[in-house]
Amino acid sequence: MVVHKLAPQPGEYSYVFGGREPMIGIKPGDIVEVSTEDCFGGRVTSPDQLPSEAVPFNEMNPVSGPIQVEGAEPGDMLAVHFVSIVPARKYAVSCVLPQFGALTGTRETAMLNESLEERVWFYDIDLETWTASFKARNSDFRLQLPLDPMHGTVGVAPAGGEVRLVMTPSTHGGNMDTPEARAGTTLYLPVNVAGAMLSLGDGHARQGEGEVCGTGLESAMNSVIAVDLIKEGAAAWPRLENDDYIMSTGSTRPLEDAYRISQKDLVAWTSDLTGMDMLDSYQLVSQMGLSPAANVCDPNYTMVAKLPKWTLQGAQAYGGAHSRLRKAAEDYSSR
Amino acid sequence: MVVHKLAPQPGEYSYVFGGREPMIGIKPGDIVEVSTEDCFGGRVTSPDQLPSEAVPFNEMNPVSGPIQVEGAEPGDMLAVHFVSIVPARKYAVSCVLPQFGALTGTRETAMLNESLEERVWFYDIDLETWTASFKARNSDFRLQLPLDPMHGTVGVAPAGGEVRLVMTPSTHGGNMDTPEARAGTTLYLPVNVAGAMLSLGDGHARQGEGEVCGTGLESAMNSVIAVDLIKEGAAAWPRLENDDYIMSTGSTRPLEDAYRISQKDLVAWTSDLTGMDMLDSYQLVSQMGLSPAANVCDPNYTMVAKLPKWTLQGAQAYGGAHSRLRKAAEDYSSR
Amino acid sequence: MVVHKLAPQPGEYSYVFGGREPMIGIKPGDIVEVSTEDCFGGRVTSPDQLPSEAVPFNEMNPVSGPIQVEGAEPGDMLAVHFVSIVPARKYAVSCVLPQFGALTGTRETAMLNESLEERVWFYDIDLETWTASFKARNSDFRLQLPLDPMHGTVGVAPAGGEVRLVMTPSTHGGNMDTPEARAGTTLYLPVNVAGAMLSLGDGHARQGEGEVCGTGLESAMNSVIAVDLIKEGAAAWPRLENDDYIMSTGSTRPLEDAYRISQKDLVAWTSDLTGMDMLDSYQLVSQMGLSPAANVCDPNYTMVAKLPKWTLQGAQAYGGAHSRLRKAAEDYSSR
Amino acid sequence: MVVHKLAPQPGEYSYVFGGREPMIGIKPGDIVEVSTEDCFGGRVTSPDQLPSEAVPFNEMNPVSGPIQVEGAEPGDMLAVHFVSIVPARKYAVSCVLPQFGALTGTRETAMLNESLEERVWFYDIDLETWTASFKARNSDFRLQLPLDPMHGTVGVAPAGGEVRLVMTPSTHGGNMDTPEARAGTTLYLPVNVAGAMLSLGDGHARQGEGEVCGTGLESAMNSVIAVDLIKEGAAAWPRLENDDYIMSTGSTRPLEDAYRISQKDLVAWTSDLTGMDMLDSYQLVSQMGLSPAANVCDPNYTMVAKLPKWTLQGAQAYGGAHSRLRKAAEDYSSR
Repeated sequence: MVVHKLAPQPGEYSYVFGGREPMIGIKPGDIVEVSTEDCFGGRVTSPDQLPSEAVPFNEMNPVSGPIQVEGAEPGDMLAVHFVSIVPARKYAVSCVLPQFGALTGTRETAMLNESLEERVWFYDIDLETWTASFKARNSDFRLQLPLDPMHGTVGVAPAGGEVRLVMTPSTHGGNMDTPEARAGTTLYLPVNVAGAMLSLGDGHARQGEGEVCGTGLESAMNSVIAVDLIKEGAAAWPRLENDDYIMSTGSTRPLEDAYRISQKDLVAWTSDLTGMDMLDSYQLVSQMGLSPAANVCDPNYTMVAKLPKWTLQGAQAYGGAHSRLRKAAEDYSSR
Repeated sequence: MVVHKLAPQPGEYSYVFGGREPMIGIKPGDIVEVSTEDCFGGRVTSPDQLPSEAVPFNEMNPVSGPIQVEGAEPGDMLAVHFVSIVPARKYAVSCVLPQFGALTGTRETAMLNESLEERVWFYDIDLETWTASFKARNSDFRLQLPLDPMHGTVGVAPAGGEVRLVMTPSTHGGNMDTPEARAGTTLYLPVNVAGAMLSLGDGHARQGEGEVCGTGLESAMNSVIAVDLIKEGAAAWPRLENDDYIMSTGSTRPLEDAYRISQKDLVAWTSDLTGMDMLDSYQLVSQMGLSPAANVCDPNYTMVAKLPKWTLQGAQAYGGAHSRLRKAAEDYSSR
Repeated sequence: MVVHKLAPQPGEYSYVFGGREPMIGIKPGDIVEVSTEDCFGGRVTSPDQLPSEAVPFNEMNPVSGPIQVEGAEPGDMLAVHFVSIVPARKYAVSCVLPQFGALTGTRETAMLNESLEERVWFYDIDLETWTASFKARNSDFRLQLPLDPMHGTVGVAPAGGEVRLVMTPSTHGGNMDTPEARAGTTLYLPVNVAGAMLSLGDGHARQGEGEVCGTGLESAMNSVIAVDLIKEGAAAWPRLENDDYIMSTGSTRPLEDAYRISQKDLVAWTSDLTGMDMLDSYQLVSQMGLSPAANVCDPNYTMVAKLPKWTLQGAQAYGGAHSRLRKAAEDYSSR
Repeated sequence: MVVHKLAPQPGEYSYVFGGREPMIGIKPGDIVEVSTEDCFGGRVTSPDQLPSEAVPFNEMNPVSGPIQVEGAEPGDMLAVHFVSIVPARKYAVSCVLPQFGALTGTRETAMLNESLEERVWFYDIDLETWTASFKARNSDFRLQLPLDPMHGTVGVAPAGGEVRLVMTPSTHGGNMDTPEARAGTTLYLPVNVAGAMLSLGDGHARQGEGEVCGTGLESAMNSVIAVDLIKEGAAAWPRLENDDYIMSTGSTRPLEDAYRISQKDLVAWTSDLTGMDMLDSYQLVSQMGLSPAANVCDPNYTMVAKLPKWTLQGAQAYGGAHSRLRKAAEDYSSR
């Protein structure tokens, strides 16, 4: 087992997918220990700061990478298994930003109203109890929230020579902001350029489905990923798999179109795995599928479509890639 | 405990909310045993029938009711607790209808394409094993699906003298098609007219989130509901509560607006229950909320916003109405 | 030529389409002189009033009618030609209402922001110069705007026994708020019930495309309409025709779906009139069509799709109904 | 007057905005004679070809450029005046592409239906009569359409180091596909990088509003542009101006959000030009604005918001830049 370390220094983070030289090169099957900054680049250190002043918009959401994967070619699917995702600081930060979030006017949903009050919440992170402390700003309400760490932004270089800001999820993955991207899950990303050029960041110590206010418990992370390559396995959109579910994603606007993309992909994937035709697969997904929102705040919205793996009657996605990566993760953890 | 029976005969079903004389009158606290037809009015009895020919569009989705609730006034909230929902026939029916469902052109999402093939699936319902049998039409794929019965359509008379076709969910509830409307759950509906005028139908032996193909396992039901009234408790949109979650709904288009409605209502409800201001509540909901799709196929789409009740630190929605109804359900069941 | 008069008294206006007894009965070919109230029911008489306080929401947008048309049956198309539309008062009123308009949060596009300032503009109407005077409230800016009177709300009883609030345009017409509904234009409405049950109101002394703030120059009107009936000519959605264009409409959300409906109907209509197949018609409409917004503020948005009539090479919609009504209007005016 | 020539050879066209070295450098005030290819790169030369086979998707829509403008800096507004746009070939091509256009399933609006028939229309272009000949493919219908040449795709390098495929319009302009981009009009583009890096292409001999089928009369063009620079004049989104109207644009999804962006920008622009506050400006735009669709088929939809210049009471946008460019165009044309 080859284990790499990727720990960018300030100034080495990227704010785009595509068009960047690799920071490290790895092979399929390798493990990467990667440290990521929070979405503010670590610059919000007190609840009395205004993130909109502390961080230029184009420097939100730094990602660590790209990681070049040997042998990855357009048409392949990159498998990224989250072995572990552990908050790196004693605090996480959330906030309401001006012109951001689902319940206020934004750049896209242009309104004449004043912005909402910009407000910051600091959470104490306790790795012992695996909790974060929520403290209301305007009352005495306090609550311990269970940690459920995830990466909001994980993607590869886009197709066609595009370079995309990290904020916008699309076919290359990126800022999908789904809580499903937690430890124990495998994310499949369609490869668009030689080497795939994987980057990740935007850790959340936890996040609700939809990320309605626009931010999770933003947290620098110490993460471990296991990377594999599925030759000629490309789908059009990112997929996920954990022990219990296969999952398709769609990222666009309006939200019903993100939903449509995710559902159509899940119908097609289920058809591939079961041998049913598209309409029979459509029927099964209609009755057994789950459909949580991932984000409804980013420049593209993301929906997730989930199907329980037991319904597949033993069919294995990508020849059992998830199980193999699960095993590799155990091997790594038990070294 | 007063127990009523509502078993409409053919010809007595309603296809609208509003503008109808009550079939029965009850008092808050009463129990109603109600039988409902399937969305085809029971007219699809073989997988070789075409539902679009067997059932006129305006006779889809018959509902049983209205039930007049004594003392209900505009500004009140009607609480409808599902005591039990049990499939009434040995089969359930699902189908792909022409110009209906999320992955095809519809009346609203107008396309030049031909309709998808109209296809029907018959499920055998087994109450012993609590399963339904899925049989692919074009291959040998077979699967036993767990039953999870629910009512797709539950609503009251709309405000302003409106009469709405049963197909369109809105502030009066109606065809929200959420799998959350299962036994053990309380649905809260804002009362718009004296007597509330509750109707329900469209049982599904089970349904995935989003109802992507446009139909669940359509099933006639023998259901029992316990009804209560919360004076002056009206919210703008229907809400639900079960033992673990409070839930808000929003029904409109596009899907992000249905999401916005559900989230804003959940933020407001949580603020009411915890005493936090709106932004602090927004923060908590952002981190702890779940956001499943209900339907993305009806004339209005429905999203559900859920918050775990343990986060409310003991606050009780509507003075503990759900618990009281839970208790009434137990009393009924143990008679 | 038979000329009817419809001049409702206070208390006789309707706030719904459907479910109402006719105020008058007419025959195809008849003329109706109809007076309509402004959208506030005439209750806003000074720029210092707040419309949201002066008028209950359910009493916004009174319509005059219904008018029962002898012989009209479901499957027919009602032709309503606007002979003249003349402001009835010396002023028109416009305003920004709380939670209404395209650039602010609304009931459907739910936001946490405070409402915009409620502000009223009074316009002096001068029928001599055919202008309205715009006076900015917060500066000295003044401007004479040309009148271009229209009816925002014209519709028939909906299908399926529905009763709809006047605010929501749909297949039955209603509050489409298109400036195309001006004198000299014929509006075609699909008939859903015997007698059609036509109502109209919501006059605007003028209005921009989209009605972005939510109101036009709201004005009571003295209007004259000529009504005809096209047997078995029903389309699925309202259409319009003037001397230069045929026009289709679509009313739903999101706005691209309203656009899709209007375009698909125009493609089908053009195909009917020219004998081209759907794809050839799609091509012609793509290159020659105009696509203005009607309203982007009501519970359903409305788009209009227009095709110049000269492209039809002499084909006449509905056997020349518009020309005949044009002629009837001239006969009426030259009495 | 300095006149440049930009005539890319095959292989020199660009398929992205951003990240490219300039082909030529010019100064503000200069004229550029530029030749552009059609959206198929000239590869569709017969109505019997299938564009989807003749042209790889990533090679659709080649643009000529970039043109580096001396002194252009982020925060400036680039003014691009279309002096003339003349079809360069004797034919123009239009088509229905698989999974493209507003009335069929697409990559974003994912459907299970088969694609529509791929069909090509060839138009003869006659510069003498200034017409294009429409010939239905499946009937004898023929029609001469007036030419109204325009550029569908005109933009600058995006902000933040992004590189965007030419297909997607956004704040940097690009594939907005508005028929308003015709000769005599000035397009204002916010500058994001030093030198602005202007590119253009995708000429249409004419196009309806909305480009519903997904293509106009695709035509190589010989065009002349006059370029100027407005220091520190940047708006957030592209604007246009002709002799009669100022126009704002918005490009995103859903279509109501594109509408909102365009309207909010027009309200703000009108406020700037008249000194009215935002609400008074909102009112004037609501009553006097026009709101045509530009495209409802590209990865982002585009709406245009127009206000007649006479309403501005003499206020000049950008210090009369359009008039100056109009004058420069005349000087060029009368050389």
